[in-house]
Amino acid sequence: MKSYRKELWFELKTRRGFVNITHELERCVKESGIKEGLLLCNAIHITASVFINDDEAGLHQDFENWLEKLAPEKPYSQYHHNGFEDNADAHLKRTIMGREVVVAITDGKLDLGPWEQIFYGEFDGKRKKRVLVKIIGE
Amino acid sequence: MKSYRKELWFELKTRRGFVNITHELERCVKESGIKEGLLLCNAIHITASVFINDDEAGLHQDFENWLEKLAPEKPYSQYHHNGFEDNADAHLKRTIMGREVVVAITDGKLDLGPWEQIFYGEFDGKRKKRVLVKIIGE
Amino acid sequence: MKSYRKELWFELKTRRGFVNITHELERCVKESGIKEGLLLCNAIHITASVFINDDEAGLHQDFENWLEKLAPEKPYSQYHHNGFEDNADAHLKRTIMGREVVVAITDGKLDLGPWEQIFYGEFDGKRKKRVLVKIIGE
Repeated sequence: MKSYRKELWFELKTRRGFVNITHELERCVKESGIKEGLLLCNAIHITASVFINDDEAGLHQDFENWLEKLAPEKPYSQYHHNGFEDNADAHLKRTIMGREVVVAITDGKLDLGPWEQIFYGEFDGKRKKRVLVKIIGE
Repeated sequence: MKSYRKELWFELKTRRGFVNITHELERCVKESGIKEGLLLCNAIHITASVFINDDEAGLHQDFENWLEKLAPEKPYSQYHHNGFEDNADAHLKRTIMGREVVVAITDGKLDLGPWEQIFYGEFDGKRKKRVLVKIIGE
Repeated sequence: MKSYRKELWFELKTRRGFVNITHELERCVKESGIKEGLLLCNAIHITASVFINDDEAGLHQDFENWLEKLAPEKPYSQYHHNGFEDNADAHLKRTIMGREVVVAITDGKLDLGPWEQIFYGEFDGKRKKRVLVKIIGE
């Protein structure tokens, strides 16, 4: 069994945003030399997400509006977590979007559907944050 | 290390619905010959879900009502994604329900709790769609 | 390839609550002797969750309030599932929080970020319930 580990770094200029990381993960799979296995990709931070969906700007705007409706950023005072911090909403938004994805590796490639794209979801940006990539297989 | 891959096909007559795929996944495990490992089962499409819960009709009706409350299908015009398409709500509903499950394989069987059943969740049906099954182990 | 399996037992005195299980999972990793691999930890019951977030009491109170807003426990009669049971809300809450986490094992340790802590999330307690730990790797 082979294993591979890599960290990807992000620093968004905005509080929230989505970054397509599919190509970077394809490079990781190639670099790993693993032909058959599983790839885990998870946010290392608890106010960010890794998720799979469509790379379509309208949908991303819908996600932003929807998450703000389900877990509004403001008023900050509505959350117990927001004493020294103001990011309780980011913890809740990331819970909806998920911490991680597990993707099959087949024939040395990410085994994704035709519209599946992998995103880093930032909900408390303007700082350096990381994603972990771990691959096991053969 | 062994690996196994299979696609399951679905074509629901309705826009939304849940299909119990536990038995099909058990057959995959048997076919794979893998005794100890992990099974990944994910929707290949981004308006569908694979999730684990109870096989109880009342609960499934509750899921339908609840998802319609959290991410209503109509009016279609409320979503930016709905220009040529009308399925933005399906992307959101699948986000709540999840893209994938990872299940342990122990002694050549799905290592599930007594009430755990695995479902395909369709949120934009009336077309052919697929689920990926990938198993690695020994 | 090595594999390892363990069940963790819980019996909360309250209907809902979060239990930090990070240390127990670290012990599982050590016990397994696996240095590189993947750990799956999932609730065996369908009204409970395993999730990763911050170990901060204010945030946990925010989760409780937020889940009660998204999927209220009462009135019980609002849910079709609640004939003989009263726990439909627990199935929905666990859906938001997730059934499982997959965590990388690197150098014989859980490969977690500095604030990542793993929790058992109970939504229908006052009874014995279990979590499954499965590790594969080398």
